[in-house]
Amino acid sequence: MRLSRYFLPVLKENPSEAQIASHRLMLRAGMIKQESAGIYAWLPLGYKVLRRLAQIVHEEQERAGHIPLLMPTLQSADLWRESGRYDAYGPEMLRFKDRHDREMLYGPTNEEMITDIFRTYVSSYKDLPVTLYQIQWKFRDEIRPRFGVMRGREFYMKDGYNFDLTREDALHAYNRHMVSYLRTYERMGLTAIPMRADSGPIGGDNTHEFLVLAQTGESEVFYDARVPELKLGERAVDYDDREQVAGICKEFTTLYARTDETHDVKVFEDQVPEEHRRVGRGIEVGQIFYFGTKYSEAMGAVVTTPDGRKVPVEMGSHGIGVSRLIGALIEANHDEKGIIWPEGVTPFHVGIVNLKQGDSATDAACDSIHAALVAAGLDPLYDDRDERAGSKFATMDLIGLPWRITVGPRGLANNVVELTSRRTGKSEEMSAAAAVARIKEIYAAL
Amino acid sequence: MRLSRYFLPVLKENPSEAQIASHRLMLRAGMIKQESAGIYAWLPLGYKVLRRLAQIVHEEQERAGHIPLLMPTLQSADLWRESGRYDAYGPEMLRFKDRHDREMLYGPTNEEMITDIFRTYVSSYKDLPVTLYQIQWKFRDEIRPRFGVMRGREFYMKDGYNFDLTREDALHAYNRHMVSYLRTYERMGLTAIPMRADSGPIGGDNTHEFLVLAQTGESEVFYDARVPELKLGERAVDYDDREQVAGICKEFTTLYARTDETHDVKVFEDQVPEEHRRVGRGIEVGQIFYFGTKYSEAMGAVVTTPDGRKVPVEMGSHGIGVSRLIGALIEANHDEKGIIWPEGVTPFHVGIVNLKQGDSATDAACDSIHAALVAAGLDPLYDDRDERAGSKFATMDLIGLPWRITVGPRGLANNVVELTSRRTGKSEEMSAAAAVARIKEIYAAL
Repeated sequence: MRLSRYFLPVLKENPSEAQIASHRLMLRAGMIKQESAGIYAWLPLGYKVLRRLAQIVHEEQERAGHIPLLMPTLQSADLWRESGRYDAYGPEMLRFKDRHDREMLYGPTNEEMITDIFRTYVSSYKDLPVTLYQIQWKFRDEIRPRFGVMRGREFYMKDGYNFDLTREDALHAYNRHMVSYLRTYERMGLTAIPMRADSGPIGGDNTHEFLVLAQTGESEVFYDARVPELKLGERAVDYDDREQVAGICKEFTTLYARTDETHDVKVFEDQVPEEHRRVGRGIEVGQIFYFGTKYSEAMGAVVTTPDGRKVPVEMGSHGIGVSRLIGALIEANHDEKGIIWPEGVTPFHVGIVNLKQGDSATDAACDSIHAALVAAGLDPLYDDRDERAGSKFATMDLIGLPWRITVGPRGLANNVVELTSRRTGKSEEMSAAAAVARIKEIYAAL
Repeated sequence: MRLSRYFLPVLKENPSEAQIASHRLMLRAGMIKQESAGIYAWLPLGYKVLRRLAQIVHEEQERAGHIPLLMPTLQSADLWRESGRYDAYGPEMLRFKDRHDREMLYGPTNEEMITDIFRTYVSSYKDLPVTLYQIQWKFRDEIRPRFGVMRGREFYMKDGYNFDLTREDALHAYNRHMVSYLRTYERMGLTAIPMRADSGPIGGDNTHEFLVLAQTGESEVFYDARVPELKLGERAVDYDDREQVAGICKEFTTLYARTDETHDVKVFEDQVPEEHRRVGRGIEVGQIFYFGTKYSEAMGAVVTTPDGRKVPVEMGSHGIGVSRLIGALIEANHDEKGIIWPEGVTPFHVGIVNLKQGDSATDAACDSIHAALVAAGLDPLYDDRDERAGSKFATMDLIGLPWRITVGPRGLANNVVELTSRRTGKSEEMSAAAAVARIKEIYAAL
């Protein structure tokens, strides 16, 4: 992509309404524009990251055997009366009437609708297990939306629902979700720690939140310093292997890690050697729940068992805040100059800066680097504007592409360009071909 | 994908509420479930097609140089007061208040919001031209939603907006949209004819609708029989080449093709030789508009010209009904047994039917065909259920995968499987390897 043909409205000034880094940087980097309180338009650069995150979530959910579908944003109030949550939900649920005076709402979550879909079509244990999920826009009418996309009203979320015959099966689904979430966050370059949590309005006994450590996090967190060191890494996971999946969950949840909601000072001090005790702040980027038959009983979602009995189906629900993740990613990856995208989620793989636009040799070198990267299936952003070098560097630093190739007449005279890491700031001179080869290697390794 | 692990709730009975083939078949094939009048959940098979269509739309828009972003579903009423459309729009606009009593609406279209985004960031001709588009859920509170996703209330639509300095530039954007739409529909296996249309509430002089010929279409159409024969085909299009793009538009719009709204009997009879005159019905699947400065003047979206004047920006808007397209595709591609997907949009590339589930040689042959197809980057659906052959065939015919590989013990004894075309019904025996190779070839050619 040539920047002269893109739409990247970066701001020079720090927007006064933004209190935290991610909000400020998303506005400055031209990723979002506020449309109403807590409601954002995703400008091209922001939308690109949102799509990349959604793609990773899809891939990891499908790898775990979960099936994508899509429910509408608007729901009928009737379904929520069946579960008893219509009255219970409070003013965060956006309610209204359509032209025929039917009561409707903008879905804040989908337990009721998915349970209705399930009961409409499934009545036998033979069709179990099944886990259905979607990535869809949701709305919660927060009284004080703030922190940009971190606490917005209209937000993009992955929500998945498992349907199982037995508690054991449902707990395997719970574990599958934990492992698939760990892999999802790792691919995004995030360390998200599963922490025992409260179930809140969803209900249920077993629930973990996933928290990204960040000073601006809304939750206080207490954990063993060895927990953030745990990595799923490259190990092959067979999601049908209950023992392996449960083993990974055990590995990630045995050491102490809790939010302020479930923190127990005595357990913390008993279990964690003093030198490993850590107190910090975290951003919630996902939560998984096992809640058994709470919704299936209320809504009559029953299946016949192999011995002919009818039992309510065992369920859980599992969410990843996709739009919120972008905020968390930036909170965890930025410096005073701007964003620093991990390679797994960067909107463009590499930036190309032309130091002397209009100089025919420099233009030709940039064109050929751009073409070589595109031919390799990569997505470069070429700053071909007629701007000062300093302004081009500032834009690249602000939008945070992990790699930059700088091309100028002086280097070209020696047959070199400069390859710079956004994270370390370190530059290396090499031939254009070597720079392209290096970028290809970096992304091939992901 | 193994069908035993998928969620494909096909219905044996014809649903009584469905009046047209596409609605009936989408319900029967387990593609959609109605949640409220005109509001559907997209079950896994339906969602898969929706994603394929959205992907094609994205690819063709990006190829034309248009930039994707994403606007929220909910909008503030204030913007619509600026353009004067808040009061004009009527009861099809879903309006409501949030918890702070602010007037909001569920966007039925986005001219106001995109014009606001533009005026916020762009003030110079130097940043032109730019075309921004999104694929997003929209809502129109139809008084009588019907025909399934063809006239739903919550619907998925691509809407794009061009911003240009001059009328000539804007007309080039208009032409770019026409050509990119023609290519989009062709890739989907559809013949969609651009017809001169009325501009309706969007406004403007130049507008074409794209209509797919189908007996169940809502519009009466009058056209020269040579028009549906026109094909864009494989020709290379350079979207920056105004002459080429305009030439293609001329090629597709010179012969007579109009809807009942703009039909002129005299012109029809004068221009079209009697043997070429056709009257039929069509389904609208897209519309493009050039409306000049209607919104930019009302909303103060002005840019400075090279000679320092300030002029309102020239605009147009351009839509493809993505969810509705699925209905149109099925209306144009079905028989009494079910859907017949064109290869470009099929949810799975090929079905595998195991005639004797549990027979170890047959199971092994199916597994190995499945694995070979997946390894080739294809997406097969393997019916591994313990069902009668007749029931498996009926399901495959209903859901309409274009190709089926049938594997049974008798064929395997002769080292053959059967490859069947859904469209022609013709079968051929060949080795499993040859069947896989044939499927690979078919999709590689797309």
